[in-house]
Amino acid sequence: MTDVSVSLGANKYGKAENRIVRIYRDAARHEIVDLNVSSQLRGAALAQSYLSGDNALIVATDTQKNTAFAFAKEHGIRSPEDYLVALGRHFVSSFEWIDGGLWQAEQYEWERIVVDGAEHDHAFVRPGRATRLAAVQTIDGGTHVLGGVKDLTVLKSTGSEFHGFPRDRYTTLGETDDRIMATSVTGRWRFLPDAVAAGIDYNALYAEVLDVLLSTFAAVHSLALQQTLFEMGRAAIEARPEIAEMRFAMPNKHHFAYDLSAFGLDNPNEVFYAADRPYGLIEGTVTRDGAPAAPEAWTDLPAFV
Amino acid sequence: MTDVSVSLGANKYGKAENRIVRIYRDAARHEIVDLNVSSQLRGAALAQSYLSGDNALIVATDTQKNTAFAFAKEHGIRSPEDYLVALGRHFVSSFEWIDGGLWQAEQYEWERIVVDGAEHDHAFVRPGRATRLAAVQTIDGGTHVLGGVKDLTVLKSTGSEFHGFPRDRYTTLGETDDRIMATSVTGRWRFLPDAVAAGIDYNALYAEVLDVLLSTFAAVHSLALQQTLFEMGRAAIEARPEIAEMRFAMPNKHHFAYDLSAFGLDNPNEVFYAADRPYGLIEGTVTRDGAPAAPEAWTDLPAFV
Amino acid sequence: MTDVSVSLGANKYGKAENRIVRIYRDAARHEIVDLNVSSQLRGAALAQSYLSGDNALIVATDTQKNTAFAFAKEHGIRSPEDYLVALGRHFVSSFEWIDGGLWQAEQYEWERIVVDGAEHDHAFVRPGRATRLAAVQTIDGGTHVLGGVKDLTVLKSTGSEFHGFPRDRYTTLGETDDRIMATSVTGRWRFLPDAVAAGIDYNALYAEVLDVLLSTFAAVHSLALQQTLFEMGRAAIEARPEIAEMRFAMPNKHHFAYDLSAFGLDNPNEVFYAADRPYGLIEGTVTRDGAPAAPEAWTDLPAFV
Amino acid sequence: MTDVSVSLGANKYGKAENRIVRIYRDAARHEIVDLNVSSQLRGAALAQSYLSGDNALIVATDTQKNTAFAFAKEHGIRSPEDYLVALGRHFVSSFEWIDGGLWQAEQYEWERIVVDGAEHDHAFVRPGRATRLAAVQTIDGGTHVLGGVKDLTVLKSTGSEFHGFPRDRYTTLGETDDRIMATSVTGRWRFLPDAVAAGIDYNALYAEVLDVLLSTFAAVHSLALQQTLFEMGRAAIEARPEIAEMRFAMPNKHHFAYDLSAFGLDNPNEVFYAADRPYGLIEGTVTRDGAPAAPEAWTDLPAFV
Repeated sequence: MTDVSVSLGANKYGKAENRIVRIYRDAARHEIVDLNVSSQLRGAALAQSYLSGDNALIVATDTQKNTAFAFAKEHGIRSPEDYLVALGRHFVSSFEWIDGGLWQAEQYEWERIVVDGAEHDHAFVRPGRATRLAAVQTIDGGTHVLGGVKDLTVLKSTGSEFHGFPRDRYTTLGETDDRIMATSVTGRWRFLPDAVAAGIDYNALYAEVLDVLLSTFAAVHSLALQQTLFEMGRAAIEARPEIAEMRFAMPNKHHFAYDLSAFGLDNPNEVFYAADRPYGLIEGTVTRDGAPAAPEAWTDLPAFV
Repeated sequence: MTDVSVSLGANKYGKAENRIVRIYRDAARHEIVDLNVSSQLRGAALAQSYLSGDNALIVATDTQKNTAFAFAKEHGIRSPEDYLVALGRHFVSSFEWIDGGLWQAEQYEWERIVVDGAEHDHAFVRPGRATRLAAVQTIDGGTHVLGGVKDLTVLKSTGSEFHGFPRDRYTTLGETDDRIMATSVTGRWRFLPDAVAAGIDYNALYAEVLDVLLSTFAAVHSLALQQTLFEMGRAAIEARPEIAEMRFAMPNKHHFAYDLSAFGLDNPNEVFYAADRPYGLIEGTVTRDGAPAAPEAWTDLPAFV
Repeated sequence: MTDVSVSLGANKYGKAENRIVRIYRDAARHEIVDLNVSSQLRGAALAQSYLSGDNALIVATDTQKNTAFAFAKEHGIRSPEDYLVALGRHFVSSFEWIDGGLWQAEQYEWERIVVDGAEHDHAFVRPGRATRLAAVQTIDGGTHVLGGVKDLTVLKSTGSEFHGFPRDRYTTLGETDDRIMATSVTGRWRFLPDAVAAGIDYNALYAEVLDVLLSTFAAVHSLALQQTLFEMGRAAIEARPEIAEMRFAMPNKHHFAYDLSAFGLDNPNEVFYAADRPYGLIEGTVTRDGAPAAPEAWTDLPAFV
Repeated sequence: MTDVSVSLGANKYGKAENRIVRIYRDAARHEIVDLNVSSQLRGAALAQSYLSGDNALIVATDTQKNTAFAFAKEHGIRSPEDYLVALGRHFVSSFEWIDGGLWQAEQYEWERIVVDGAEHDHAFVRPGRATRLAAVQTIDGGTHVLGGVKDLTVLKSTGSEFHGFPRDRYTTLGETDDRIMATSVTGRWRFLPDAVAAGIDYNALYAEVLDVLLSTFAAVHSLALQQTLFEMGRAAIEARPEIAEMRFAMPNKHHFAYDLSAFGLDNPNEVFYAADRPYGLIEGTVTRDGAPAAPEAWTDLPAFV
């Protein structure tokens, strides 16, 4: 085996899932930002750590963690995107041998508890409707900012058809002009670099994109989940000029009408069995025409086409 | 070993986690009820199945499943409690050798999606704020109905103290008069048999109990999570005369102020690390004085003191 | 509402899921014990904490955690049962107002990695075949010790029948004399107090019980999962005189023969779809005749009939 | 907004997580293959489904499911790699407009239960040590075959150091020459196209790679998890000429020595707290020198650098 030689290829390292909660308590009415932050660094010069265990250039994952917590105080967290941009810029500018990285966050929403009709100043409940996603990618000399959402679970009890598909030896599925359509949306959107440079109100944008995704899901009479996905992406891009492209992964969470005929009962789409596995899995990208492509922006982001 | 003899003790069997979705579509504005239903039967006469594999009295778990789906059509699902009462009554009355059982449901909430300011007729989003629980227990000749909630995650960013506890050789915890208090509430309540017999609007009651739990969590200035738990139970029992007792399991989801002093930064309860494990686990029962106890009602219910 | 009065019922509190790893490194060949430990205390005198937030008698959950870690050093962990007995005795004897508690552990197995045919001294791989369970319960003036196992997943590809069950309006299941039987065994066993007092080699017993459970599952030609459950309990009790009773929860993990007839293919029990939900759920207790019952020993233990 | 136009970018769709269990029962000694199979198709011509809901070219996800189950009978499952190759070839050759896809499988191991010293013919227990991974990628006119493993959890109780890393304002981590190193290995390897064409005994290769990964983890005295990762990749590539490259994601599962000094106890690396989050996350690629790169082979594979 002595004639086999190997080399180090793509790599990155860091500290994942730092659960950072930032309370703003300057006024009686507190604000809360609740994040799960991951930081990973890349650098061609890091190879020595892999090859020989020489850590002279390895910014410890513990240091990355400390920095993430410290930045929550020093810079605050106006939005997860703004916070990750600051974090990434710090590492790339502080350590000359670090030439890239991936910084990610999940954000968990909190709503104020209502007491006697008024929102409470410092008591919150987690609505759990969806998880917000943000990512900053520094790679190949550029930096990209992405927003997103996951676990946005939606269902239509009618207004969904599926027919006209090809039939071969293995096809048994019947055609339908009325079915339940349900999915749990994972979506990410890449911001146009010019918009990032000009400054974006990321929180307002997130709220608007969520509204657009939901209302489009509701309003589109669906002939295929693929079609609904595309219309959701189109609507978001139309609504917000800062977005260059949208990527989605949408499981088709099957609801099967339960066969009640053996019991002498009719079932006109009233009683369904909600299945776990297998599930359809529909993925797609919607791009703004004219926006420069940046496939490298998506490097290593989980769960995508 | 020939002189060892054994007997069958407590047992039950059935079909767990039937995911039943019921759509009411008589009007353009659809209604949706989304349940996870488990049915299990008990009977002294069932011992033969365990002892010899004689299934003459074993109502198949598949039959229990079919019945659960059929009842969603035949009886509908006004509330999970009403539905489980009907399901349990069916098994006990149809098979003379079945003398008890446990029927449980989780209910997942759906909200209407808003399109152009109006609630959509048949498109929904799952808010995910909490999961509703219901159970019907037939045991020792009686039937008990229980409601509940789980995964209700709440947090106070101030208004929580903890001090005055005893100190021994193993005590290192400092006293505090200002900490984050966060928990994920699991609560179950047992209904008074007389109230069940008279009829209860379970859906309205659930909504009111949730409001009371939230507002009490918010309003109580807490000296211990134990105290908050007790006040939440007291408030629910005071609010609804149908409730005989409340049981809670509340993890103390620790948020530790991150030590930023090494970085020259002060941290006056602004930046926290949200820990996963270990966690405090506080459990307690609040009972209405004068209501007859019924410990058997809680047999086999998961996660309780 | 002023005439409603409430009281505190059953309660307990403590620190859950302390992940304690103990390395024995006195010799070059290290030993590892990997536990997840929960400690909870009970006491009638603790009511003041719930009622008024007076913590004078509340042994902090943080103190319970510290004690659990300290005992891993002071007393070592010969077996999870021995360790929990020492931990429980400490709390009850050190604080006169603590009159009971529940101490639980999961143990994760590690196997030595084999290098060049020899077991390594200090490198391990987690086999993940099952998780060992232990519990010590102090309640009503007595102390009970329980062992157990969960996540022991087994399957028979033949040797399992199911027929002869009653048929009603909701029965559609066909009879079968050959099916896959698969389950994930959760089992707990209660030790006879006399055996505990005399001393038990808990580690050897656990290994033997696991062998007996597996070989009995394999050897019994099954007419119902209930029957297999009972025979597994009988075999364990016959094998070890220290065991007073066995309790099991066994999901029937359904494997459905996939219908290939539409594709012109026969399927003589060769291709199966392994379903997630719903699943059968069979639970039962096997007791040694003559052993005194101790239902209170099972108080609050998760997942049982 | 009328002047915004959008297009469809990268996409794929199919049926995920088909739980297929194949029993070989031609002899008394049964064999079992237990897979979780996902199939997704790509094709430029599929755009019409996304753009207009025209499904004329959409091979239904239900058809993909049926095909996956039927192939388990028609072609059998010699290895997950062989099976996925056949499945992918079928779709690409049967439907001219399908020009690519991604087919993935997880395989769950089963061991024979031992009864009276002999392996049982048809009773099995799941060892759960690791999950095998396989993938076939057809993209850009080429087809790539990948093997892999996940959830291989390993630990060294000594023989791991970490020091010499740079220190900045945010660095507090101490240097250590003796720590626990633990990780859960996810690894994937890409096979050389020539080796695939010549035929590979994938099952034997998997077994050998696992042995090599384990023994290398054990044998390397580690100065950084990065170094261990690289050596594991090197060893696998040296062992098997069929492998072009190895990619790994290795969380550094931190074990912190618990501070017992407040209790008057020494802790010379004997008692550890095993933390959940955050964790280090080390990722890297090891490539065989001279093997042509094929970055497109890794498109959409989960969890990688």
